[in-house]
Amino acid sequence: MDHDRMLDLLLEAATLKRMPRTGWGMRGVPNVESVAEHSFGTALVALALAEALAAEPGSEQGGPLDLEQVLIMALLHDLAEVRLTDLPVSAVRLIPPEVKSQAEAAAINDLLAPLPAAGRLAALWQAFEGGSSPEGRLVRDADKLEMMVQCLRYEQAGCRGLDEFWQAIDGHRWHFDLSARLYLRLKAMRTEANT
Amino acid sequence: MDHDRMLDLLLEAATLKRMPRTGWGMRGVPNVESVAEHSFGTALVALALAEALAAEPGSEQGGPLDLEQVLIMALLHDLAEVRLTDLPVSAVRLIPPEVKSQAEAAAINDLLAPLPAAGRLAALWQAFEGGSSPEGRLVRDADKLEMMVQCLRYEQAGCRGLDEFWQAIDGHRWHFDLSARLYLRLKAMRTEANT
Amino acid sequence: MDHDRMLDLLLEAATLKRMPRTGWGMRGVPNVESVAEHSFGTALVALALAEALAAEPGSEQGGPLDLEQVLIMALLHDLAEVRLTDLPVSAVRLIPPEVKSQAEAAAINDLLAPLPAAGRLAALWQAFEGGSSPEGRLVRDADKLEMMVQCLRYEQAGCRGLDEFWQAIDGHRWHFDLSARLYLRLKAMRTEANT
Amino acid sequence: MDHDRMLDLLLEAATLKRMPRTGWGMRGVPNVESVAEHSFGTALVALALAEALAAEPGSEQGGPLDLEQVLIMALLHDLAEVRLTDLPVSAVRLIPPEVKSQAEAAAINDLLAPLPAAGRLAALWQAFEGGSSPEGRLVRDADKLEMMVQCLRYEQAGCRGLDEFWQAIDGHRWHFDLSARLYLRLKAMRTEANT
Amino acid sequence: MDHDRMLDLLLEAATLKRMPRTGWGMRGVPNVESVAEHSFGTALVALALAEALAAEPGSEQGGPLDLEQVLIMALLHDLAEVRLTDLPVSAVRLIPPEVKSQAEAAAINDLLAPLPAAGRLAALWQAFEGGSSPEGRLVRDADKLEMMVQCLRYEQAGCRGLDEFWQAIDGHRWHFDLSARLYLRLKAMRTEANT
Amino acid sequence: MDHDRMLDLLLEAATLKRMPRTGWGMRGVPNVESVAEHSFGTALVALALAEALAAEPGSEQGGPLDLEQVLIMALLHDLAEVRLTDLPVSAVRLIPPEVKSQAEAAAINDLLAPLPAAGRLAALWQAFEGGSSPEGRLVRDADKLEMMVQCLRYEQAGCRGLDEFWQAIDGHRWHFDLSARLYLRLKAMRTEANT
Repeated sequence: MDHDRMLDLLLEAATLKRMPRTGWGMRGVPNVESVAEHSFGTALVALALAEALAAEPGSEQGGPLDLEQVLIMALLHDLAEVRLTDLPVSAVRLIPPEVKSQAEAAAINDLLAPLPAAGRLAALWQAFEGGSSPEGRLVRDADKLEMMVQCLRYEQAGCRGLDEFWQAIDGHRWHFDLSARLYLRLKAMRTEANT
Repeated sequence: MDHDRMLDLLLEAATLKRMPRTGWGMRGVPNVESVAEHSFGTALVALALAEALAAEPGSEQGGPLDLEQVLIMALLHDLAEVRLTDLPVSAVRLIPPEVKSQAEAAAINDLLAPLPAAGRLAALWQAFEGGSSPEGRLVRDADKLEMMVQCLRYEQAGCRGLDEFWQAIDGHRWHFDLSARLYLRLKAMRTEANT
Repeated sequence: MDHDRMLDLLLEAATLKRMPRTGWGMRGVPNVESVAEHSFGTALVALALAEALAAEPGSEQGGPLDLEQVLIMALLHDLAEVRLTDLPVSAVRLIPPEVKSQAEAAAINDLLAPLPAAGRLAALWQAFEGGSSPEGRLVRDADKLEMMVQCLRYEQAGCRGLDEFWQAIDGHRWHFDLSARLYLRLKAMRTEANT
Repeated sequence: MDHDRMLDLLLEAATLKRMPRTGWGMRGVPNVESVAEHSFGTALVALALAEALAAEPGSEQGGPLDLEQVLIMALLHDLAEVRLTDLPVSAVRLIPPEVKSQAEAAAINDLLAPLPAAGRLAALWQAFEGGSSPEGRLVRDADKLEMMVQCLRYEQAGCRGLDEFWQAIDGHRWHFDLSARLYLRLKAMRTEANT
Repeated sequence: MDHDRMLDLLLEAATLKRMPRTGWGMRGVPNVESVAEHSFGTALVALALAEALAAEPGSEQGGPLDLEQVLIMALLHDLAEVRLTDLPVSAVRLIPPEVKSQAEAAAINDLLAPLPAAGRLAALWQAFEGGSSPEGRLVRDADKLEMMVQCLRYEQAGCRGLDEFWQAIDGHRWHFDLSARLYLRLKAMRTEANT
Repeated sequence: MDHDRMLDLLLEAATLKRMPRTGWGMRGVPNVESVAEHSFGTALVALALAEALAAEPGSEQGGPLDLEQVLIMALLHDLAEVRLTDLPVSAVRLIPPEVKSQAEAAAINDLLAPLPAAGRLAALWQAFEGGSSPEGRLVRDADKLEMMVQCLRYEQAGCRGLDEFWQAIDGHRWHFDLSARLYLRLKAMRTEANT
């Protein structure tokens, strides 16, 4: 293993701390969270979801989830943005989806190359990207749920103009029933605060 | 003319004030300028270049430049970023150039639609994008020169880690001899400050 | 032409990117726009106004406007603030208007001196300052309209305490009927959002 | 499981995105990272360390590490700061260590209570806090190594006055030889940049 | 007197300008005031309170207050936070009060040591901390009143989620009747703005 | 006394927390201190100077200083900026000094009017402004010394481009020998750090 290349990866990954989540800033949110902050939040939400599912055995998706995989996916799910940046919905509409996917995959493969486990980690990222494993689908839910937790935090602090986010998620298909139930509770909290 | 659609355009364009110039932030610059600030600076640099060229008649490119066109191009040259955001070099490397160009053109056409002169303005943007008129080429030079003026300002304030910008521009082909001379002077100022 | 003096002007003008529009900050707005951002916005509003007027020939003020002049005025209208800073209403009340005008004119003349067209540009700034040409009056309208576009953006994002701005503009005399109509629509958008 | 209490935990944990890492700010660093950003970075460093160790079997500490445990510890290691805030060295010197430990343990137990796996997660946090398992010791190393990666990033961007951080870590006893070697390389990168 | 040690104190005290008032940030307030700003405000509120009391002789607490002492206490009341940082309520609940008091006293004694009047100043701080003199009690009132003045400012600017602050202060026992009356008026201003 | 007018004063004075010290920002300093922060620092420096002078009796200016007056002056010395804003040197050069003085005096008189002691406080401000009492002269020294303490802090954190500040102060005439000696030590600290 090449120590310098591994440090280069860690130094470059720290750029995610300076990479704003673009959608918030475009709507005038003053303290825009970084991609690193969102990734941390997603890992925490995914941990909570996985633990809650494990405590209700048999309820969903058959067997138990592999928590190690879940956490790796949550940490790495936006790593490509260190090079691509966080593209907002308005940009995603203008770029063909397969172009974006290929760009992300190329970035992920190149970024992870210095790690001995590069192949395994890239495969996990692919499972998240494609939603092709229960663990990947759980992290996809966590990614959205975390965004709405943050959205409610912004609104509780006085931010306005974020209705689009709730409307977009209302049309989202949750992979796990637990995620859907938590989102409904989050929306209820929002409504209670406004009445 | 539809007043509300025109106001929608002006309200959306104000988003450029909250759109950071990504490259600076990725290298740790603390007060990242916005795309709106860079566009203002580019218009000013373009104005200065055009006036200087006009005062040295016959020296370059034949006839006089159309200053109205120059200023419109400078103001609009990054307008598409209101939807696409400011893609850094690391992102541009991952997206095919024709995909980016088409996305920008689609954004420009849609954004300018509420204006009566939409067709004329979009054609000017194309002339900038393709460098297909002397005015477009001048604004291409102004775009780069403004970036380096800002880069020197950051360095004068203590920012480090921006050598890449100078190296990239060293390989740039200036369209006007005046731009090249001004860049050399700017580099000389940088060197004098460091010795 | 002295290249170094021209670069000094461009480097100093970049200070407008760090010059906050004071009025917002005094009322607690968190992300205060810079004078450079406001100048960019004013140029865009002026461009839209001029194009709209050109499309309705004969409707206002006799002949067509000189768009080149409009754009130069919009870009330069607050350039003196690079030295004077953006004085809020509370400061303007304490300083005799002729003192402020003379200070601005002195700053403009000194700043523009390195440009070959200094005299022509300073005369355009005077026409804006005094509202002594149709182009100058249009940019005066654009200056105010842009402020209110930004004000609505702040309010849409949750900012409060900005009623004074609307009240002050309600008493403003618009030079062009088109400006007045656009402002009324902007106010209507504000009211719709609050009901 | 109580969904509302689980959401309360996730909403409160999002406060870590607004909790600055105090030491940087006290020394004048302009863009202070948040505890959430540091936690994300620590998890990434821990993942890299664990993968590198797994690829060199037999080299250190006997058996293989449990990566799931490593990632949970890294995510949760500073969770108590959501209530206690990030106490800098100057504060830690003034508060008896056992008082700080008890306060953190009380916060962790109370925060995690809404999760079904609260007991297991709290025990993992204890193993990190006490360095009482190989996984806990690895995350202790990752915590320090991540701090120095960020420190180098700040210095590369022009920040000064951070020598104390390097001096403090020079006296640190690394638990894994790999961590010590990576730190030495990081220091070498720093030296190369300054000469 | 040792000039260098005195300068070291002044340089260290400037750190209070970078020390955020933690409670606001945890609730999402975007522009968090610093401890230095709060200390300035507290001194101003204390000055106003003392002048108002002096103008109503005989009304409260017997004799006249020593304004010099009041101002010194207001300036120094949070000086220990330069080392301890601003601990929010959630942290104070987890740390025994006597531990916090001892830590603050130790910090104050060490910080003030370079001044010839160290003993007198530290005694004044103790009188504030313990509320053991009329001057100390006045500054305790000023500390709370200033917090609520700032809270109203944040709310006037659109911040939400600060109800806890008003609820906590509602249960506060004011030392001076004047403070209580001013707080009631402040609350009335808040209510008027919301109806 | 009118409680509401007194609260209006305190609410307006809190605006100084959002009023940037303009000179730093114009030179690219990222975290610009507020006028409130500078006023706090000035009061602290003035306190230290006064205590040090009191400990060396007979050494300067005859009799002992009135510390109450010193602290009031330090707190109020920039209060007029709540309406006038902090005018940088480049603005001061463009406005006749008597215009500025009259504007400040008018602002001070109007601001302090709600306080019973308005006349006495305004007279103290005049003594500071004119340097017409030993206390006023001490605060004038403290004002400058505090600026240079902050300047050194910025430079220690990596800021550059602040040489002008040191050059301007080198030509300053200190009213107290103690201030001059402390400034020389501060400069020595700066030199030691750079070699």
